[in-house]
Amino acid sequence: MNRSLLARMVGRILLIGAACMTPSLLLALMDHTPDTRAFAITIGIMLALGGASYLLKTSSDTWRPRDALGAVTISWLAISAFGALPFTLSGFIPSYVDAFFESVSGFTTTGSTILLDIESLPRSLLFWRSFTHWIGGMGVLVLSLAVLPRMGGRSLFLLRAESAGPDPGKMVPRIGVSVRLSYSIYIILSVILTVILLFCGMDLYDALIHTFGTAGTGGFSNYAASVGHFHSASVDVVISIFMLLFGVNFTMYFCAVTRNFKAIWRSTELRLYVVAVVVSVLAIAVSILPRYADFGTAVRYSLFQVSSIITTTGYATDDFNLWPTFARCVLVLFMFTGCCAGSTGGGMKLIRVSILLKNLYREIRKTVRPREVNIVRIDGRAASEEIVSSVHVFFFAYIFVIITAVLFCSFDGLDFESTSTAVIACIGNIGPGLGQVGPVGNFAMFSPISKIVLSLCMLIGRLDIFPILMIFTRKAWSRP
Amino acid sequence: MNRSLLARMVGRILLIGAACMTPSLLLALMDHTPDTRAFAITIGIMLALGGASYLLKTSSDTWRPRDALGAVTISWLAISAFGALPFTLSGFIPSYVDAFFESVSGFTTTGSTILLDIESLPRSLLFWRSFTHWIGGMGVLVLSLAVLPRMGGRSLFLLRAESAGPDPGKMVPRIGVSVRLSYSIYIILSVILTVILLFCGMDLYDALIHTFGTAGTGGFSNYAASVGHFHSASVDVVISIFMLLFGVNFTMYFCAVTRNFKAIWRSTELRLYVVAVVVSVLAIAVSILPRYADFGTAVRYSLFQVSSIITTTGYATDDFNLWPTFARCVLVLFMFTGCCAGSTGGGMKLIRVSILLKNLYREIRKTVRPREVNIVRIDGRAASEEIVSSVHVFFFAYIFVIITAVLFCSFDGLDFESTSTAVIACIGNIGPGLGQVGPVGNFAMFSPISKIVLSLCMLIGRLDIFPILMIFTRKAWSRP
Repeated sequence: MNRSLLARMVGRILLIGAACMTPSLLLALMDHTPDTRAFAITIGIMLALGGASYLLKTSSDTWRPRDALGAVTISWLAISAFGALPFTLSGFIPSYVDAFFESVSGFTTTGSTILLDIESLPRSLLFWRSFTHWIGGMGVLVLSLAVLPRMGGRSLFLLRAESAGPDPGKMVPRIGVSVRLSYSIYIILSVILTVILLFCGMDLYDALIHTFGTAGTGGFSNYAASVGHFHSASVDVVISIFMLLFGVNFTMYFCAVTRNFKAIWRSTELRLYVVAVVVSVLAIAVSILPRYADFGTAVRYSLFQVSSIITTTGYATDDFNLWPTFARCVLVLFMFTGCCAGSTGGGMKLIRVSILLKNLYREIRKTVRPREVNIVRIDGRAASEEIVSSVHVFFFAYIFVIITAVLFCSFDGLDFESTSTAVIACIGNIGPGLGQVGPVGNFAMFSPISKIVLSLCMLIGRLDIFPILMIFTRKAWSRP
Repeated sequence: MNRSLLARMVGRILLIGAACMTPSLLLALMDHTPDTRAFAITIGIMLALGGASYLLKTSSDTWRPRDALGAVTISWLAISAFGALPFTLSGFIPSYVDAFFESVSGFTTTGSTILLDIESLPRSLLFWRSFTHWIGGMGVLVLSLAVLPRMGGRSLFLLRAESAGPDPGKMVPRIGVSVRLSYSIYIILSVILTVILLFCGMDLYDALIHTFGTAGTGGFSNYAASVGHFHSASVDVVISIFMLLFGVNFTMYFCAVTRNFKAIWRSTELRLYVVAVVVSVLAIAVSILPRYADFGTAVRYSLFQVSSIITTTGYATDDFNLWPTFARCVLVLFMFTGCCAGSTGGGMKLIRVSILLKNLYREIRKTVRPREVNIVRIDGRAASEEIVSSVHVFFFAYIFVIITAVLFCSFDGLDFESTSTAVIACIGNIGPGLGQVGPVGNFAMFSPISKIVLSLCMLIGRLDIFPILMIFTRKAWSRP
């Protein structure tokens, strides 16, 4: 890799990180909380290192796909590593591994926590913890809408899958414009959500925290009971709807702005998303009916949990770990699928699921009529065989990482359900799983090694697997 | 499909079934047990229907791939349906759905049971129950070594995967010879095992029952404690070794007979099989060491359980459900992978796992060096891209069936671990899973609908998925 250019990139990320941490420092100063020093020191280190990187000479300007992938991976690791410092320096999360887990969980918009007592942390630290979701969500948008589609590396399945859909690049030819457009939509939706939450009776702080978690599809709350803390139907419904909105491919919003409604209507992924949400909300509502007063209440809880899991946010309004097995199985299924590509959500992405399902159907037809020619149609157009096959490799890679991580984490001796759903929840960037890592549980009981494995899973899931697997090969580090 | 030819085929299978049931009838007559009438009636019905099928006129002799696949599927269903009759007619398994489950479990060499008290059944019924394993194992050998490789249908992944390996067709050009060769090897290995088990102190009946279960990699025992009943190290080791032998691709034995040792040495699948067994036996032995007196004993129990699960037999010498999570996770992993193609074992087959792993490695290399050309090598030769892609589709189909079946079975409200491992154990033709369906549990608590779904899973797994999925399409049933 081009190491000096890489260092310059990471340096810039650290300067952005320092800027992002400033509001938390101000909040700590205002509240006179013991984490003020921790924030000040961390910001100082990030500024120093970030500034120093500008003194480095860059040896060359060639910037190959693997450099870009390496830069993305290392930036995410670096910002997480420094973002963890305030937790440890302030003493609120004494173990650095724990703090790193929490920080990675924030930046990857996962929302899994090792905190036993969330509400004992000062406002400023909780603000930072949730703000990482919002920054991470922005990072993912840039990555999936602007960086990856322009690199064309063999591993960029997302790009391939997306290139079959409405291509943002065609509407807005320059990267800068496309990034600015997605940022604008992200910020506008976030502001609208905050205002609505204020109207629902939240104070500004709570409204911001829950906007960060919703927009980034992260899931950190400042309350142990998550969104269930508010006991408010209107809050539940508003957050449900906004989670779903942030789970839509952002190119759909470009299309809406440019009045290209035909592209929206044609979107295979969006259709699957809508059908999956409607069908599962109703099915789960029926299955959990005995727990609630009436069907309306059951729908409210079902809608919230389906939206929260399929968008990989991870908020909870009830302990879904106590729901019937059918409801829990549907939720675990959504932990795998995730929502739309090009959104802030995680998981495998529904566009890949569509391609896998359509190809399976094609294969069964071929069994019956071997000579019939069939194609996989996505958004009304034929998907190339290369896209189809790369999505299949992605699927196997996803399962392979899960199996490997489960074997590592199984040494801790937790039960099978907790171990497997912990890994699935981390690689899918969801947050809670089932059993001991359910919505009222946490990840504190894992060993430090497992916490590192789970942190890696979050990054692997967030960066669509291959950039991270790449750094384990020796060739990636050789000079050009 | 060519319905009249199909009926003739099924008729012939029923006649074979009637012949196979005769030893059990004789045993029932000898013991004067109440199931004598049940066997006699069933044999009578099978003889009548089988004979009647010969009166049908066959409209045409064209025999297309889908006819063959249809015939295989319907034959397996028919023999299972009639094989279930003695259980119900004798009153020992009053519910026909339960009896059908038990019969499918036998013929598919799965070994999952709905019996709460196995030892209360008469010898003759238990003999029939275990004999179905031995017949099923033979059927699978013919299917995977002689029928499928000659059909060339698009869905026959096994064939494709195998055609990269040593092709039995090249050594023995005619189907008849190849079938007779595999039968001979199967019968010779079975006789050797029975004799050794007699030397280990079993009586002839027990030795036959456990030979049937081992040869077919089925797993039905006539004791509730399975092979653990004998408390004999020599029995454990002998059965472990023979399970492993029946899990080897039978073309390897052709190669050994024809002194083609180079092909054996080159076999990618066999190498993975050996490495997987050795590594996991040692790793599990270390993890379960605290449960046993010494390392030797731990290795004995670990070897038995690994052999039993990776070959998808399903015998147990200890309740591995109580083993540490790591050991249980490794066993669940082997429930997915299974052993070698062309053996009597089930699961996804290690040749497919090899191709998936090698292709993943290639994909990661491509991320780093997009212009480098890499190929997937199997048995020292390049595997075609079509094989690689069809294996990927198979993998997704396998997971898709598991997810669908888990959702169906989840309505019964069993815990997540039991529900998911029940499905995995059925589609992989293993037998026991974890939790309530563990080695000391059974499948009795599932609803009739779930039992039918699980029976279908066993058939889907046994017939390599696509023949069964095919019968759900309307086109399969249309006239030529």
